[in-house]
Amino acid sequence: MKFGGFIGRINMEGYKLVRNAAGRLVPTVVNGRKVVPFKGVNKYRPNGRKASPPIPTCIDYPSDGNKIVGSLKEALKLCGLSDGMTISTHHHFRNGDIIANKVFDIAAELGVKNLRWFPSAVFPCHEPIIKHMESGVVHHIEGSLNGPLGDYCSRGKMKGMGVLRSHGGRYRAIQDGDVHIDIAVLAAPTADAFGNANGLYGKSACGPLSLAKPDSLYADKVIVVTDNLVPFPCYPWEIVGNYVDCVVVMDKIGEPSKIVSGTTKITGNPDKLKIAEMAASFIRDAGLLHDGFNFQAGAGGTSLAFVNFLEKIMKEEGVRARAMVGGITGYVVKILEEGLGDYILDGQSFDLEAIRSLRENANHVTFDLLQCYNFHSKGNTTSMMDAIVLGATEVDANFNANVVTHSDGRMLHGIGGWQNSLLAKCTILTIPSVRRGMPMIRDEVTTLVGPGELIDVVVTERGIAINPRRKDLIEATSDSELPIKTIEEIKKEAEDECGRKAAEAEHGDKVVAVVEWIDGTILDSIWEVKKA
Amino acid sequence: MKFGGFIGRINMEGYKLVRNAAGRLVPTVVNGRKVVPFKGVNKYRPNGRKASPPIPTCIDYPSDGNKIVGSLKEALKLCGLSDGMTISTHHHFRNGDIIANKVFDIAAELGVKNLRWFPSAVFPCHEPIIKHMESGVVHHIEGSLNGPLGDYCSRGKMKGMGVLRSHGGRYRAIQDGDVHIDIAVLAAPTADAFGNANGLYGKSACGPLSLAKPDSLYADKVIVVTDNLVPFPCYPWEIVGNYVDCVVVMDKIGEPSKIVSGTTKITGNPDKLKIAEMAASFIRDAGLLHDGFNFQAGAGGTSLAFVNFLEKIMKEEGVRARAMVGGITGYVVKILEEGLGDYILDGQSFDLEAIRSLRENANHVTFDLLQCYNFHSKGNTTSMMDAIVLGATEVDANFNANVVTHSDGRMLHGIGGWQNSLLAKCTILTIPSVRRGMPMIRDEVTTLVGPGELIDVVVTERGIAINPRRKDLIEATSDSELPIKTIEEIKKEAEDECGRKAAEAEHGDKVVAVVEWIDGTILDSIWEVKKA
Repeated sequence: MKFGGFIGRINMEGYKLVRNAAGRLVPTVVNGRKVVPFKGVNKYRPNGRKASPPIPTCIDYPSDGNKIVGSLKEALKLCGLSDGMTISTHHHFRNGDIIANKVFDIAAELGVKNLRWFPSAVFPCHEPIIKHMESGVVHHIEGSLNGPLGDYCSRGKMKGMGVLRSHGGRYRAIQDGDVHIDIAVLAAPTADAFGNANGLYGKSACGPLSLAKPDSLYADKVIVVTDNLVPFPCYPWEIVGNYVDCVVVMDKIGEPSKIVSGTTKITGNPDKLKIAEMAASFIRDAGLLHDGFNFQAGAGGTSLAFVNFLEKIMKEEGVRARAMVGGITGYVVKILEEGLGDYILDGQSFDLEAIRSLRENANHVTFDLLQCYNFHSKGNTTSMMDAIVLGATEVDANFNANVVTHSDGRMLHGIGGWQNSLLAKCTILTIPSVRRGMPMIRDEVTTLVGPGELIDVVVTERGIAINPRRKDLIEATSDSELPIKTIEEIKKEAEDECGRKAAEAEHGDKVVAVVEWIDGTILDSIWEVKKA
Repeated sequence: MKFGGFIGRINMEGYKLVRNAAGRLVPTVVNGRKVVPFKGVNKYRPNGRKASPPIPTCIDYPSDGNKIVGSLKEALKLCGLSDGMTISTHHHFRNGDIIANKVFDIAAELGVKNLRWFPSAVFPCHEPIIKHMESGVVHHIEGSLNGPLGDYCSRGKMKGMGVLRSHGGRYRAIQDGDVHIDIAVLAAPTADAFGNANGLYGKSACGPLSLAKPDSLYADKVIVVTDNLVPFPCYPWEIVGNYVDCVVVMDKIGEPSKIVSGTTKITGNPDKLKIAEMAASFIRDAGLLHDGFNFQAGAGGTSLAFVNFLEKIMKEEGVRARAMVGGITGYVVKILEEGLGDYILDGQSFDLEAIRSLRENANHVTFDLLQCYNFHSKGNTTSMMDAIVLGATEVDANFNANVVTHSDGRMLHGIGGWQNSLLAKCTILTIPSVRRGMPMIRDEVTTLVGPGELIDVVVTERGIAINPRRKDLIEATSDSELPIKTIEEIKKEAEDECGRKAAEAEHGDKVVAVVEWIDGTILDSIWEVKKA
């Protein structure tokens, strides 16, 4: 193993590398904080107590409840913005966010340096942050990286290490005190002057603000920024004003057309359609459908198609769902409105239909990341899901999977709720066996994001592989007409078609980012990509 | 001052008495914890950070989300019930609660001793706890005391001191770490096996579970007890299952007829009706009514009558309310349903009409004690109320008020949200000037629960007294036809009628309980009543 030389000694970046329980080389110190290498699924037990924010007092807040200040700059100054602080923002507005850039522009103006940016995810719209990293305003980013910032980090240009956490992992990190947020800046489509806020109304409506909830609870200071001020009470109050220090009103907080799609579209790709249909059929044949079953699906083209096929099967079989969870789209809303399901539990809304339903339908409700995804709580509802269907960038012969890097080693996707979702009773990954002439089932994944023991089924256009650990699923589908194969068979077919095995990414010596497991241990390292 | 002799020295109970900023003698140590004497309104500034419960992990909870255990006894054993622990319960079920007694019966059975019971309030149904105090199972109670337990404490029989906290003060005490709860036992009218729970459905429906929320967030262990188990998800989830350790299902968790009235009734007493009408008229004449005004009223007979008169005036003046807050009854629901108000924010439901509306009306919503009442948060919504109408047992010539003891010094009422409500823009106390031949406006209140500077108006059947600090209200009502008098005038009239001043309670030397102010400082002491 080519980085074996580092084991047990400090390299030039000041970190030591050790091999974790998954056989991956990981640093023991990340951005100056001592970390625990991955110990195996369900092996690491936390100790200590939750983070505790300072005790505030009503004496310091206006008794008329009006916390509005004149500008974001004023708010940041009031909250004591200064060198070395951690500032959090959120990706509710996806590629339509304009607040994060403004925050760091202001920091630059004020001469503040070495900030840690702690976003829930970055998007291409955040490219301007690169100049703030170049000038030293932002020291580094901890959050899902992709697009230009992912590339910047992959090329080893960021000062600190990237830390990639799942949505639940981010909640956990805040709760457990791994990340102390000095100032949280929460873009809110609707808010009152007291700071109560939601994402359901206004021109920047984006759906649930679940991602921002832990920041509101644990940050020292909380700023709500809105372009739709309503009289108290702003209800629902996803963000509760009692945690908010000040409110900023702006003409515009996002680019509506980039915040949420008008409608999300099902894939037109025949292979992906085939994969989606097989995933739905597998759920039927494996006996996972029953009255009151719970399922979750994402918002990618294949997942949307899966939801459509599932709906058809539910009608054929006369089966009703109890809870339908996820990043929600109009396709799931349709199932609810047809009376085929009892509840939608919505962590993120991906289209306008989802937001409309969330506003109108009492059984379409906002779901907190604590509830589904924070592994350091008293249970996760995700483990109660009968089936979850997810995508991946790569899988390997041991069912390990990758969702953050491509096979060239570049960071190109956020983790989202992906790792957290692996706790489902049946986790199904959908993946084309070949992409751009490269087999997607490898000897070993480029980056380990999901341990194979948690991945039950891999569905490709060539067939379905069931993890040998899941004898129950193998037996349940023994009479199925679906093309059930071993993962090695599918791997070989894809390699034969491509005329080669998957290439191994060539990379440099430097760890540019780490992937945290849901329990906060370090699952894998992401390496600097080899200079072209 | 007869207890001056204690100042600066330790008395036989191990506490020292000092005179606080209100001139009251208070202990500096309460149940072994060092406490801060009241320093004046808005004078005490907390430091430090919030309480932090232990970090749990999903490893320790069933992945199928089924946390049901066989019995309350098993649950208490699983949660490690042992000597000296603090156990919390709640008064959602009012005099129909059967769970608290069961908890301590089980503790007795298991031979556990010296527990601290930390209820949100006690009721006459809790009389059996006396035998557990006698036997040493329960060391003492911290919570609103009244009925037989109030009497027991008043007579100096309880081992520790009673600590009387407002609803918001209780939340604050938990949040700030003044009271560490080892095990919270939450009676829940509806719950799922994961521990999500609400109070809206089932035979024990009681309305919001707001009182139990801080316990669920901060206790080390949380037990949900229900008689109405529903499939996941139990929605709304006022108690979030991710904070719950185990769920117990019983045939019966309360006496429905004692949990909530069928309907609450307006007073028939002509003096009280007169007081209620004057309070409503005062709000009109003082110019407090405007479109979008916010108000709060309680559930006593006078308050209900006040709501009725206010409704009439709102119609006459053509004014709509924005937020109507409180312990809610059908009288407030009627205003919402007539379209005269936008929102009901409901901290406690006092009749079946309120619960029905809370279930059915999207604008009738559950209100968290954090939001309205926890003084150690970033503002309280209560200070945004244009008017709040409350009762009292006594007031004095300086507008100080009492709500916990009668003039004989006995503890007979809980504080509830009373102290917290004093933060309103205009706080109006309604009180008969004479009760049972005794003037209710005194030289000095028997127990100081509300500092006079926060009480703006006192309405009696003889007239209305405005606090001289509120020149604005005095001026605004200068043309009013209402009988506006000085408090001294009303006091003298009442004394003349009774032929005497209010008697001063004779009491012993021992502090049996303390009254906390909303910031956690000690506002007053309650003394052992003189043995008959």
